[in-house]
Amino acid sequence: MPYGAPSSALRQPKVDPVKHALSVTREQDFAAWYQAVISEADMAEESGVRGCMVIRPWGYGIWERIQKLLDDRIKATGHENCYFPLFIPLSYFEKEAEHVDGFAKEMAVVTHHRLIQKDGKLVPDPEAKLEEPLVVRPTSETVIGAAFSRWVQSWRDLPVLINQWANVVRWEMRTRMFLRTSEFLWQEGHTAHATVDEAMDETMKMLEVYRSFAEECVALPVIAGEKPENERFPGAVATYSIEAMMQDGKALQAGTSHFLGTTFSRAQNIKFQNAEGQQELAQTTSWGMSTRMIGGLIMVHGDDDGLRVPPRVAPHQIVVVPMLRDTEEDAAILDYCSALVGALNGQDVFREPVRALLDRRPAKAANKRWGWIKKGAPIVIEVGGRDVAGGNVSVLRRDRLYREDGKLDSRIIAKDDFLAQATTMLEGVQQALFEQAHARLHDNIDRTIASLDDLKSLFAASSKPGWALVQWSKPTGAALDKVVEWLKGEKLTLRNIPLDVEAADGACIFTGQAAVERVLVGRSY
Amino acid sequence: MPYGAPSSALRQPKVDPVKHALSVTREQDFAAWYQAVISEADMAEESGVRGCMVIRPWGYGIWERIQKLLDDRIKATGHENCYFPLFIPLSYFEKEAEHVDGFAKEMAVVTHHRLIQKDGKLVPDPEAKLEEPLVVRPTSETVIGAAFSRWVQSWRDLPVLINQWANVVRWEMRTRMFLRTSEFLWQEGHTAHATVDEAMDETMKMLEVYRSFAEECVALPVIAGEKPENERFPGAVATYSIEAMMQDGKALQAGTSHFLGTTFSRAQNIKFQNAEGQQELAQTTSWGMSTRMIGGLIMVHGDDDGLRVPPRVAPHQIVVVPMLRDTEEDAAILDYCSALVGALNGQDVFREPVRALLDRRPAKAANKRWGWIKKGAPIVIEVGGRDVAGGNVSVLRRDRLYREDGKLDSRIIAKDDFLAQATTMLEGVQQALFEQAHARLHDNIDRTIASLDDLKSLFAASSKPGWALVQWSKPTGAALDKVVEWLKGEKLTLRNIPLDVEAADGACIFTGQAAVERVLVGRSY
Repeated sequence: MPYGAPSSALRQPKVDPVKHALSVTREQDFAAWYQAVISEADMAEESGVRGCMVIRPWGYGIWERIQKLLDDRIKATGHENCYFPLFIPLSYFEKEAEHVDGFAKEMAVVTHHRLIQKDGKLVPDPEAKLEEPLVVRPTSETVIGAAFSRWVQSWRDLPVLINQWANVVRWEMRTRMFLRTSEFLWQEGHTAHATVDEAMDETMKMLEVYRSFAEECVALPVIAGEKPENERFPGAVATYSIEAMMQDGKALQAGTSHFLGTTFSRAQNIKFQNAEGQQELAQTTSWGMSTRMIGGLIMVHGDDDGLRVPPRVAPHQIVVVPMLRDTEEDAAILDYCSALVGALNGQDVFREPVRALLDRRPAKAANKRWGWIKKGAPIVIEVGGRDVAGGNVSVLRRDRLYREDGKLDSRIIAKDDFLAQATTMLEGVQQALFEQAHARLHDNIDRTIASLDDLKSLFAASSKPGWALVQWSKPTGAALDKVVEWLKGEKLTLRNIPLDVEAADGACIFTGQAAVERVLVGRSY
Repeated sequence: MPYGAPSSALRQPKVDPVKHALSVTREQDFAAWYQAVISEADMAEESGVRGCMVIRPWGYGIWERIQKLLDDRIKATGHENCYFPLFIPLSYFEKEAEHVDGFAKEMAVVTHHRLIQKDGKLVPDPEAKLEEPLVVRPTSETVIGAAFSRWVQSWRDLPVLINQWANVVRWEMRTRMFLRTSEFLWQEGHTAHATVDEAMDETMKMLEVYRSFAEECVALPVIAGEKPENERFPGAVATYSIEAMMQDGKALQAGTSHFLGTTFSRAQNIKFQNAEGQQELAQTTSWGMSTRMIGGLIMVHGDDDGLRVPPRVAPHQIVVVPMLRDTEEDAAILDYCSALVGALNGQDVFREPVRALLDRRPAKAANKRWGWIKKGAPIVIEVGGRDVAGGNVSVLRRDRLYREDGKLDSRIIAKDDFLAQATTMLEGVQQALFEQAHARLHDNIDRTIASLDDLKSLFAASSKPGWALVQWSKPTGAALDKVVEWLKGEKLTLRNIPLDVEAADGACIFTGQAAVERVLVGRSY
């Protein structure tokens, strides 16, 4: 069964002979294609409220899967979930200047607590103005820090390891569904520790949780590394990220883990008595992953027929479409499909029950089939009267949709054979999506850049150039500003300093000084 | 094993010979006791942000269990989860006058999207004033209605059955943790249908989902019924509720289901072409249950030693406390406990894996034991060196904490016997909590009231009088206002008109006219 090698589409786009389900291809217009996938897969839509989206069942179902699998890992590493207020008093922010600078420009501010009718219009009641305006949380370090200061008195109270699933608001001027919306959903972990070492261990542990979650569950290969100084979270001593490569070569920051040192414990007074009886400030961390991950999933796994969802995060992994014809055969087809779905749901895959669905909606089977292809259900089964008679099913694997002649690769398999291999097939889809993306990522990191001219040519030569891994001297302060400014002129950014690459052995391409490490450079979302 | 009859504590308070874990008893001060439970069980605390609380891991863990079990039932009845914007433009509210009237007085209003420094203080930037203020959702009929109007074109698009888990804000003047907070967490279901009958079926189906969920999962016996006209949700044609009785005799509305008719489809233009080709307005419903349920759980199941959590919603059902003494025996005790927890977690109860926890924290065993009693873990196991040697465990059942002589009823059981009966014991705790509350509810509904004087005396005679089920003529408009006014003078409210009671056969105690049904009257939260 020659399904062909994993695609490394980024630099070898092949002209596709197939008529695809979307009206626009990735090659034609990647941004328009992205919107088309979201719309055709019924994932989300504009809400009519500026910068906010409506997440529809298929999109939200993927988020529920992400929540479940990430939450399990967050709990397995000793964290407990809490819930903190949506509103943060301005005075909490005033205590930490750098943090304020990072967020003040994009904060939604609540100023009134009542509406009245005036000249037939609803307006905020001037009599109900808040004494202290409240900010809708853009992130919760300040309000959670205030709670930590109540909870932590002695070294015995440490570590505090908590997480919250919440909505946050950052008033973005330019929004894009899932990638940058004024309101988004995320989890934010917050921890407090007695020592720098423990807090750094936590920071790196959660970075690794994000890396393994992204790779194992979302099939999203990433590069884990430290952000350069200019890209740190406002108030952090060190910020780490996982970076994923989209099919247009751009980078998406898909999760961050911050070592905050004593920035917030100083501002919020998180102090403890150590074993020697002295007062110390706690060392804190925070780390977050958001609905942005769904944007990454689309741009890494989608194709010109729509989304392809990795089975572990697919709301439905196997969808069974009965080919009904309004004849008396229909009842037998439905019974056959029902039994099939029941048998599938009784099996386990990835240590959870299989999620198979019988699509009973009153619509044409072909429309339903293409609907599920666009949504990216990993396996679509069709069952007609002849399949029932022969004890067969017709199987479509979303990761291998077409035969070499461009026709849909729908395969007739004995039902019992399919039942015996369904979970292996799901594992195969998960693996194939990861391998395709993994090959693309690693084939498209250029390690040969020796000068700024090399870098310029690389990004000038291709519309989808991937990233460059370059040697640098890790400049700071004004010297770093100069580097960032130059990169900005080329529409480039520093992504991160990967943890797992060979040591530097040459000259910094920016400063000419001896390089001390390697940094990833690329365009980004 | 004479554990005594189910407690109907409401009218037969018995003097307790036991020294209890809380500093205040239910008898002494029910409101102070409620706060003490929340605080001593580490469920929640004041946040420092007006009207908002911090929900701590034990409180949030109960909410996660409620979410999981209720979400399963919501999905099993055909609903899908979505997510809609936190912010609602004022113009959406202006379209539905009655709805506005119900909520305008308690809305948090966002008026600016940026902060600036001014005279060393952070203030909303006057240059960043929103053209149209945004309300933080108090409920989402309007913004979800706007989405429905995009989704619904033809009768084929109906029904639309969706739900969202979200935070909402109602600016309450007097707040009380879990019962009435400015921000709270809930689920809100919203559906659209082609006919009144289908929408009414949905309204009643979800009322029944709430009733069965409350009774089966939270062990909270409730009375399901229709709210009188004056208690309807703003904009509803009919509102149904489940009402639970707290241990102080007051009623708590624990969930509501609304038939909204065409109120919101008219305001938001949710129209469809029917099978005959004509345009019709959709019939909509909404229904919600919130973190308030946790307040009800506390006030129904708590006792003078703290909370008692029904096993189905307990974050940990069985907590194993090793009695360590810093001797070399400790390792054997921990191994024994570990194996026990592993064996428990390998069993199923209520069709889910058992949730047993080994409490390894470095604290005194007695403190840990009392900590778990206050938190209300259904079963607490203690294991010391002698238990290990004898192959035993010491078992405390939270619903039967004391022997008749007032000592803790800790029972030594062979470990294998305990393993064999642990799930039955958990089922027994769940059942016992329900039965105690059920007896209390039904023993404390007075069905003998024949006049307003009777009603007055009933509520004057006791500080915890329960409810009265009285016959009435179902007055409307001004006549109903008069009844409500009179009741208000007695600090009473109409709760609901129960679905499952015998027909009326006498005179209305309020109007003297022929009664048509029976209505519940009581004090309320």
